Amino acid sequence: MDLATLIGVVLGSVLLVGAILLGDAPGIFVNPPSVLIVVGGTLATALIRFSIADVVNSFKIAMNAFTVRLNNPQEVIAEIVSLAHVARKNGLIVLEQQPITDKFLKKSIMYCVDGHESEFIEEVLQKEVELTLARHQVGQQVFNGMGASAPAFGMIGTLVGLVQMLSNMSDPAAIGPGMAVALLTTLYGAVLANFLFIPLADKLVLRSQEEERNRQLIIEGVLGILKGLNPRVMEEFLETFLPPKDRKNAMEKR
Amino acid sequence: MDLATLIGVVLGSVLLVGAILLGDAPGIFVNPPSVLIVVGGTLATALIRFSIADVVNSFKIAMNAFTVRLNNPQEVIAEIVSLAHVARKNGLIVLEQQPITDKFLKKSIMYCVDGHESEFIEEVLQKEVELTLARHQVGQQVFNGMGASAPAFGMIGTLVGLVQMLSNMSDPAAIGPGMAVALLTTLYGAVLANFLFIPLADKLVLRSQEEERNRQLIIEGVLGILKGLNPRVMEEFLETFLPPKDRKNAMEKR
Amino acid sequence: MDLATLIGVVLGSVLLVGAILLGDAPGIFVNPPSVLIVVGGTLATALIRFSIADVVNSFKIAMNAFTVRLNNPQEVIAEIVSLAHVARKNGLIVLEQQPITDKFLKKSIMYCVDGHESEFIEEVLQKEVELTLARHQVGQQVFNGMGASAPAFGMIGTLVGLVQMLSNMSDPAAIGPGMAVALLTTLYGAVLANFLFIPLADKLVLRSQEEERNRQLIIEGVLGILKGLNPRVMEEFLETFLPPKDRKNAMEKR
Amino acid sequence: MDLATLIGVVLGSVLLVGAILLGDAPGIFVNPPSVLIVVGGTLATALIRFSIADVVNSFKIAMNAFTVRLNNPQEVIAEIVSLAHVARKNGLIVLEQQPITDKFLKKSIMYCVDGHESEFIEEVLQKEVELTLARHQVGQQVFNGMGASAPAFGMIGTLVGLVQMLSNMSDPAAIGPGMAVALLTTLYGAVLANFLFIPLADKLVLRSQEEERNRQLIIEGVLGILKGLNPRVMEEFLETFLPPKDRKNAMEKR
Amino acid sequence: MDLATLIGVVLGSVLLVGAILLGDAPGIFVNPPSVLIVVGGTLATALIRFSIADVVNSFKIAMNAFTVRLNNPQEVIAEIVSLAHVARKNGLIVLEQQPITDKFLKKSIMYCVDGHESEFIEEVLQKEVELTLARHQVGQQVFNGMGASAPAFGMIGTLVGLVQMLSNMSDPAAIGPGMAVALLTTLYGAVLANFLFIPLADKLVLRSQEEERNRQLIIEGVLGILKGLNPRVMEEFLETFLPPKDRKNAMEKR
Repeated sequence: MDLATLIGVVLGSVLLVGAILLGDAPGIFVNPPSVLIVVGGTLATALIRFSIADVVNSFKIAMNAFTVRLNNPQEVIAEIVSLAHVARKNGLIVLEQQPITDKFLKKSIMYCVDGHESEFIEEVLQKEVELTLARHQVGQQVFNGMGASAPAFGMIGTLVGLVQMLSNMSDPAAIGPGMAVALLTTLYGAVLANFLFIPLADKLVLRSQEEERNRQLIIEGVLGILKGLNPRVMEEFLETFLPPKDRKNAMEKR
Repeated sequence: MDLATLIGVVLGSVLLVGAILLGDAPGIFVNPPSVLIVVGGTLATALIRFSIADVVNSFKIAMNAFTVRLNNPQEVIAEIVSLAHVARKNGLIVLEQQPITDKFLKKSIMYCVDGHESEFIEEVLQKEVELTLARHQVGQQVFNGMGASAPAFGMIGTLVGLVQMLSNMSDPAAIGPGMAVALLTTLYGAVLANFLFIPLADKLVLRSQEEERNRQLIIEGVLGILKGLNPRVMEEFLETFLPPKDRKNAMEKR
Repeated sequence: MDLATLIGVVLGSVLLVGAILLGDAPGIFVNPPSVLIVVGGTLATALIRFSIADVVNSFKIAMNAFTVRLNNPQEVIAEIVSLAHVARKNGLIVLEQQPITDKFLKKSIMYCVDGHESEFIEEVLQKEVELTLARHQVGQQVFNGMGASAPAFGMIGTLVGLVQMLSNMSDPAAIGPGMAVALLTTLYGAVLANFLFIPLADKLVLRSQEEERNRQLIIEGVLGILKGLNPRVMEEFLETFLPPKDRKNAMEKR
Repeated sequence: MDLATLIGVVLGSVLLVGAILLGDAPGIFVNPPSVLIVVGGTLATALIRFSIADVVNSFKIAMNAFTVRLNNPQEVIAEIVSLAHVARKNGLIVLEQQPITDKFLKKSIMYCVDGHESEFIEEVLQKEVELTLARHQVGQQVFNGMGASAPAFGMIGTLVGLVQMLSNMSDPAAIGPGMAVALLTTLYGAVLANFLFIPLADKLVLRSQEEERNRQLIIEGVLGILKGLNPRVMEEFLETFLPPKDRKNAMEKR
Repeated sequence: MDLATLIGVVLGSVLLVGAILLGDAPGIFVNPPSVLIVVGGTLATALIRFSIADVVNSFKIAMNAFTVRLNNPQEVIAEIVSLAHVARKNGLIVLEQQPITDKFLKKSIMYCVDGHESEFIEEVLQKEVELTLARHQVGQQVFNGMGASAPAFGMIGTLVGLVQMLSNMSDPAAIGPGMAVALLTTLYGAVLANFLFIPLADKLVLRSQEEERNRQLIIEGVLGILKGLNPRVMEEFLETFLPPKDRKNAMEKR
């Protein structure tokens, strides 16, 4: 699992739960009907907004993002460069037998081996990247949508509670606790949105950008292999995608 | 009807109505004047904002989106590829007699049969797609506009109620219920906006994107038929529009 | 006057005034000083934001939008096609004597009659369209600006009222009415912004889009006349600007 | 000084000060510590956000915008056309001795006189325009930034006041005035942002757009002079930058 | 350290701390649990949103921005022009021995010395600039993200406090202080966001723009050196990147 996310979730939860447990009346913070309204309403709205497949997929994409390790770009470059060496010595056909860890790189190489033209391969791969990005974007939209719905349903729940409390104020002692319960949905909505949905949507964006950069790297690399570029020149060019400190051939090191 | 929307609407309504029925004084939540102010004000504002035709159309578009099934892209590709096979064997003219389920595909093929030039056909079809998108966009604008107006009129109704209540506080027992009623319009506005208008506008956007992708598929396919592309090559190219798992000729499957 | 706007304004006003008249103490809702602060402050801010000419013009543009009927695009196409027929038979020069209802079409035709080159005419007309759009945009900005200022001055008025009320709470009976009056400016600001300024700004955007589409139609048509296109072909092409149901030669009708 | 701004500032101030003077306890509205928190905090934040030079410059730019009169575009066109006449009769070199009121026009003509190539001149002048716009943009950012900071510091001041008041509620009579004072910073922040900073930022945008249009006019004109365009044709072309009613050779006037 | 930021931080802190110390009960404003919720929650959310490396880097970038002095553009131009003189007299190779203070300029010159082609050098350097901007952008996103989280956790803390207070209102004397403490987190969140995170994010944007302009200057200059442009012409061209008052050869000065 993505380490930063894990630390963040644990740290935030400890702080929040701690603040509640150390205060008066921690029991009042657990209120199943309030949970139902906020979580249920948020989910219901997500279903109105998107298709069932989109909602399910976005949870899968999020799961993926936190459990599947992305090849770091240095590894991808190393893999491309080694393929370029092989192709230079033994021709493109031999690449078919090479073990390739990155799935997108493998597919790209297959197109080369199949003898398609350079323009066709670039077009097909770019479209592939676009489609992946579009799918990730739906995932982000689902989480951002839930990040907008949760506080709204928190407010709706609080309004329902306030109306109920205000319409019957005969017992002054019940006013305080009644309002406390009414505020709970707002609290739930704020926590869900700001601590969960919105940060997750943002992390998916970041992850999506990293994946795109890796794929652009691969497309450039594969086109270079097709053109028969010198592997060393190619490596130097591909490394411009990296921050200077991660470069092997960096100019700075002279 | 679109299943996800149906589930979402039912789930959300059950939760909300349940929370109200299980609480005190469910009767107070039904208040016709408050409904009139929020719904009427939102509708009135939509009429100021748009033309009557736009408002009516946007409801039609929304209805359409939930009742008319969109051809899924695999079916569209299959239909294009089968037309490509026919055209290759018997020439473009024969396509006129082919049964074609997708209306936009039918129209596109007609342009081919009529012997128009490739550039002209592409231009006309692209413009068609743009216009459809523009119409959908108006639908989304109408719903988003109502999603912005509903909470505003909710607030206006609450302010009216508060001013009435505050200007006459001689009876302390009336203060609670008076404020409860005043808050009702805010509740109505929040529910209408967050549970109905905004999610519907978002669903129209998604639906519109799907329809556009189908049409881009068709335009690419028809241009391919005109160029006399190999149906198998065309199929492979068109499938790049699909997520990998939906592809027939997917590279991955080797 | 634009019918939808009229209906919207009447419907909304009836609802709002009705809700006030049917409630307690309708008299309290009329408060000239509060009106002065919100309306005056909004106007003052508009003057700081824009030039006097911009503010005056934006009211004129709004007036125009609600009283001047825009030629509907079918009429514009019919007029262009009939001009194309004339030009084809009797040459471009004769167009000068033709009666032309649309002002922009008339001007465009004049450029043709004057014998300017096609590129020059297109450039001049496109610039003209851009400038009109820019002027409309200022109108929208003025209304949107007032839509943002009105609630702000509503809040300022309420804050002034609250500070006055809070600084002198010796008479508990005056607290309620004092707060009621303080809330009035917020109510005025919300009504002005959400029921008037923002919807009007949106309608100007829509109107502006319609006018632009008409003008693009005319530019395409005039360029077609200059090229000596077949009027029937031109009609079919121009109709792609229309939604399918409004087309005369629509493919669908076969 | 810009007339509209002057009227707006006076009108708004009169209304606001009037509402305060006519109400109870006008004295309570003057509270130096509250002023210090809002104005000081806003300024401090502007310094964190921008460089000292940016903040100082933005005040200079704002001053400039309200005191320096911009040449109106008709005058600029007249000046360009008269230069074009001179250049046509006596050659480009003579332009050096011509008196030219617009500074940017003067500089542009100098580039022509120096014998630079048309492309070079266009590139240099466009970059100049871009840089001026960028500087104006910083000015707008500074004012918009202060427009966002002022209400924030208003809220911060109010929170400080509320916490102080709530932590010591032994004297009920002090609660009202304490809250009144706490609300003052919110009022100051709202007035500063909505009545001053945001409108000024918007006026700078408008002013900047006018200046850009003038400069685009000059660039087009100077390039026309270099090409040796007929002054009359040039005038007609440059006038397309103006709204129709301001044109001398307007087509409409026939 | 960046002077403006230092002044801003000191000025703002003095005002805020002063307002608290001069008021009643300054002690109540220091509340470690409230600090923990807001600061901890904000940090936790940043970790969920970004990777650990991003969060750490953004603090480094911010540190850098306030401690490392950027070469001002005049110095950069002077350095480029002097290199151009050397290159003109003694050829490109000699540049290798020249002392060059700007790191990016040094690297660019190295590419020239290495004999790469002009297009290759431009492409590599532009990519380098893009990557630096992308890294800065992550820094801004981290700070903007914390600027959005801090008030949210402020609200969450206040809601927790309010629920605790409301659920136990047996002691009326505890209500005031309880609410005061509940409001503290909102205050902390507002101060952190508006006085620290958001202004810092904005300053990073500005700094990033300055750095980009310097690098564009260098790219243009190095390409000019490669083309063998006259150093004087180059200087005049590069100075168009500067505001007129900072130019040496400014047209205005004649």
